[in-house]
Amino acid sequence: MAADNAIFVGNKPFMNYVTAVVMQFTTQDAEEVTIKARGKFISRAVDVAEIAAKRFLNGQIYVDDIKIDSEEFENKEGKQVRVSTIEITLKKK
Amino acid sequence: MAADNAIFVGNKPFMNYVTAVVMQFTTQDAEEVTIKARGKFISRAVDVAEIAAKRFLNGQIYVDDIKIDSEEFENKEGKQVRVSTIEITLKKK
Repeated sequence: MAADNAIFVGNKPFMNYVTAVVMQFTTQDAEEVTIKARGKFISRAVDVAEIAAKRFLNGQIYVDDIKIDSEEFENKEGKQVRVSTIEITLKKK
Repeated sequence: MAADNAIFVGNKPFMNYVTAVVMQFTTQDAEEVTIKARGKFISRAVDVAEIAAKRFLNGQIYVDDIKIDSEEFENKEGKQVRVSTIEITLKKK
């Protein structure tokens, strides 16, 4: 199995991410897929997981685990900034 | 114990929610607090949980469980709409 079937959710069109998740499970035959996002894209990552699991692959995958965390980094002005992160792991039933 | 120490995150000032969570654990002596949000406020709910757990009550509480789900409802135009939801349960160590 591939070490890490991760989809990073950002500001591309919403359906790109849903399609990417669905393709991993179907054409790539992945056992699990992790959806990752930071900051304001966290809400979107949850939408991607819900739409993939309930509309496209209903009854075929489930939410196995959800982790939240924080990342600290230095912004352009040299100021220390904190951003929240999420990792949603979907698994084949 | 109170049946449900729930904080609903919306568009009030961010620190209101962090303070509400911290107060539940301190002055109200709650064993657990659930942070709930829908749609675009999901990212904010994760921020509230992270700031409460890592900045204000670091080492005293932990993320016990995270659930995501969808709610369907009819909007003003009579159209069926889906919105994602999150519930983050924080627990005293």
